[in-house]
Amino acid sequence: MFQAADPEKEIGNRNRARSRASRSGLIGLPAQDYSAVLMDISHDTIAAIATAPGMSALAVVRISGPGSLALADGVFSGAGQSPSMWPGNTFHRGLIIGKDGAVLDEVILLVMRGPKSYTREDVVEIQCHGGARSAARIMKRVLDMGARLAQPGEFTRRAFLNGRIDLAQAESIMDLISAATDRAFSAALEQLNGRLSREINRIYEQVLSSCADIEASLDFLDDELPQEVGKEIIKNIQASIKEVELLAQTWNEGHLVRDGALVVISGRPNAGKSTLMNALLGKDRAIVSHIPGTTRDTIEEQFVIEDVMIRLVDTAGLGDSSCSIEQDGVRRARALMSNSDLMLYIVDASQAMHPDDMGNIVNQDPGKTVIILNKSDLPSKIDPDFGASFSRITTSLINGQGLDAVKKAIVEKLRIGLCHEPMTIVSERHRQKLNKASDALKQGIELILSGDEFLAPAASYLREAAESLAEITGRRYYEEMLDNVFSRFCI
Amino acid sequence: MFQAADPEKEIGNRNRARSRASRSGLIGLPAQDYSAVLMDISHDTIAAIATAPGMSALAVVRISGPGSLALADGVFSGAGQSPSMWPGNTFHRGLIIGKDGAVLDEVILLVMRGPKSYTREDVVEIQCHGGARSAARIMKRVLDMGARLAQPGEFTRRAFLNGRIDLAQAESIMDLISAATDRAFSAALEQLNGRLSREINRIYEQVLSSCADIEASLDFLDDELPQEVGKEIIKNIQASIKEVELLAQTWNEGHLVRDGALVVISGRPNAGKSTLMNALLGKDRAIVSHIPGTTRDTIEEQFVIEDVMIRLVDTAGLGDSSCSIEQDGVRRARALMSNSDLMLYIVDASQAMHPDDMGNIVNQDPGKTVIILNKSDLPSKIDPDFGASFSRITTSLINGQGLDAVKKAIVEKLRIGLCHEPMTIVSERHRQKLNKASDALKQGIELILSGDEFLAPAASYLREAAESLAEITGRRYYEEMLDNVFSRFCI
Repeated sequence: MFQAADPEKEIGNRNRARSRASRSGLIGLPAQDYSAVLMDISHDTIAAIATAPGMSALAVVRISGPGSLALADGVFSGAGQSPSMWPGNTFHRGLIIGKDGAVLDEVILLVMRGPKSYTREDVVEIQCHGGARSAARIMKRVLDMGARLAQPGEFTRRAFLNGRIDLAQAESIMDLISAATDRAFSAALEQLNGRLSREINRIYEQVLSSCADIEASLDFLDDELPQEVGKEIIKNIQASIKEVELLAQTWNEGHLVRDGALVVISGRPNAGKSTLMNALLGKDRAIVSHIPGTTRDTIEEQFVIEDVMIRLVDTAGLGDSSCSIEQDGVRRARALMSNSDLMLYIVDASQAMHPDDMGNIVNQDPGKTVIILNKSDLPSKIDPDFGASFSRITTSLINGQGLDAVKKAIVEKLRIGLCHEPMTIVSERHRQKLNKASDALKQGIELILSGDEFLAPAASYLREAAESLAEITGRRYYEEMLDNVFSRFCI
Repeated sequence: MFQAADPEKEIGNRNRARSRASRSGLIGLPAQDYSAVLMDISHDTIAAIATAPGMSALAVVRISGPGSLALADGVFSGAGQSPSMWPGNTFHRGLIIGKDGAVLDEVILLVMRGPKSYTREDVVEIQCHGGARSAARIMKRVLDMGARLAQPGEFTRRAFLNGRIDLAQAESIMDLISAATDRAFSAALEQLNGRLSREINRIYEQVLSSCADIEASLDFLDDELPQEVGKEIIKNIQASIKEVELLAQTWNEGHLVRDGALVVISGRPNAGKSTLMNALLGKDRAIVSHIPGTTRDTIEEQFVIEDVMIRLVDTAGLGDSSCSIEQDGVRRARALMSNSDLMLYIVDASQAMHPDDMGNIVNQDPGKTVIILNKSDLPSKIDPDFGASFSRITTSLINGQGLDAVKKAIVEKLRIGLCHEPMTIVSERHRQKLNKASDALKQGIELILSGDEFLAPAASYLREAAESLAEITGRRYYEEMLDNVFSRFCI
């Protein structure tokens, strides 16, 4: 069963966790923030439709909070006892009755008693008929009874605030739901499982321990700090830095898994951009979709290689600036190129080199660029040195020749074919916190090395690093941070 | 709780019901059809995703059949006993495990033991995370374990075949799901509740009783049929005819409630058709949607009056045949007009009468047509007798004047504002069966009146009428009929 990553520390009410943290003096919030948090902790009952809209056999209305069982008693009519008398983990068939006594639908009602529920509060789920009306009718009734419409992510926020899952686990829920590939789903599931949280907690404890060692050594301030103690502390902090950095690096793979890889096709007109696009999409059209790009000029198409979503964008217009195409379009194409995970730059090799081609690739990162020398069915007129510092592939896309090599290059350049990291971080927020932690740890070491008089400020940097790590799992949190995290929830 | 409409007769296995019917000699199927039906009765386990696709907190995979508990044991891992050991009506949190031992998702698994389930078979529901991946992963696993992908409507078909609901109730499920208005939902819910079925069953018994009376009177064949017996039989049959016809008439309201009313706006160019369309939609845009019409020339817009969906179609092109518009378009417009529940024919009253206007309305049914004399802000030039045999409304739509009168006319003409029939039939199939029953009853009476020697064939007509009624509730059914009924299910 998936549980809080570190049961002893994480299970239980956040109130408890918070006052414990507050007592320790290490992690805390300004006093005025507490009240906001306390208000947030579910002293009201929330409700939302938990299934997607559309024609379907069934839909589910979910209710959570102290009033949910009383609410169920008020709207449900079935044989036998009222829902509030049922044991937890049971369900029964019955009717939802409207304010005027009319039947709203025939349903199955589930009772999940806190803390054995998703939110740790009393939860009631009403499974009704699918389609447009039933869930809407029941929601209206439930809101009339005094429940409040849940905000996006609010059920999961309560699961976090009530200590069932930590913040990294809570974040994985949205990743699970929005996962487009099995690999993205599995990565999110691993995070829900608490593997990342356990690793973060381990490093966090390690940094705290280094911090405690420094604070203990402050007692020596008047004396000399024993050299071997100092060495041990530095060794430990360096180990922490390495672990934090390794974890941060996994984001490169993790974000590709979660968000897909942005691959930009670029090149001069008639080089074969559209042919390449169609050829790449052709075989993998299974989950191809047309998504309007961020600008009206680009269309994003998607396909899957090695269970990673590739977001393929054709940048029409690049290199056409001489042909009076608006500068704006070119700027946007260049912005896309610099944000991309990979650029496929395609050249018509049957033509003499064009100065634009040279200009377009000169500043590109060879690690993120593949040159495609197309039209190899025709005599080559291109400078054989063109793009020599890049990976180059010769193709005749009109015959499908070289396509497999292009796909292989995509997999290799994006490193998505490599055996996967045992644990990856997928969230930009986590990467930022890790980077912040490693920066603070490095500054801590620098201060320690600068002399004993800097030990106190060094400890404060270590504390900052620990806090950064604590913000990943939500041991430390503040309202605005939660708002940011849960604003990602569309449901 | 909603149950089979006539528990004594309907509850229990259809096999039983069928052999009983077969013994009675009244209702039966040709012998070769039996095997097809028997094969259909759920000796395999079916599965389907029961929720709509899309981003959502949760999705549900539903499994029904003799193998569902064993299947659950094979894929579910949770604390405690295997699902097959749980009592019915319980659920537990746990993990779905893939073939290779990997976790597919964290879920809640519900066990519904037959016959206390939707299909009366053992049913297992797996509540997993919403979005594209989870339910798909779990479905794949469930199918790998030997379940079969359910056909549309198959769970409900099993509920019918296993005697939990009758056929009229089964049909109401799809109406519940596709209901666009509360009124349509309520009408379907009433049918699920069994009210229609009870009424049909009552008339059915009444016809059977008349039939038995006639058969008993056949013993008098050599003698004279006592006159008062004959009168009593005829009186009873006439009562049945009246009840069947009254029920059939409710379809007029019922189908509007279920399917919405098709209202066609017609008129010559520039009479104000688009203005009328926009004016009608303007205030009620809440559930307006753009639906491509059956022909590429028409767009259907929807709005709701008195909780009835109005499907508004603008027939551009009508009356333009003189302006070289293709005959085809005009034909289609005329077909729409004749299928419509109501036509709003709009005329520019500030112009002299156009011969086309006269031609367009001459053959229309005044009960289904409203003439709108538009542009009353300008001096009227139209023949004051134009459309005098129709309901006429004077408007100046550009100022919004007369719009309320148009809406009132729609409500009145469609009779959707009247107090509702206590029970309506909504299904075209039911109407056909009712009409067939009343025709057969009438022919029976005619034969009875023709002389005692026709009593045997008269009884056979009454039997036919009873069979027609039995086909509404599914007391009598055959494969093809079920296929037709359940082919309406999109889920």
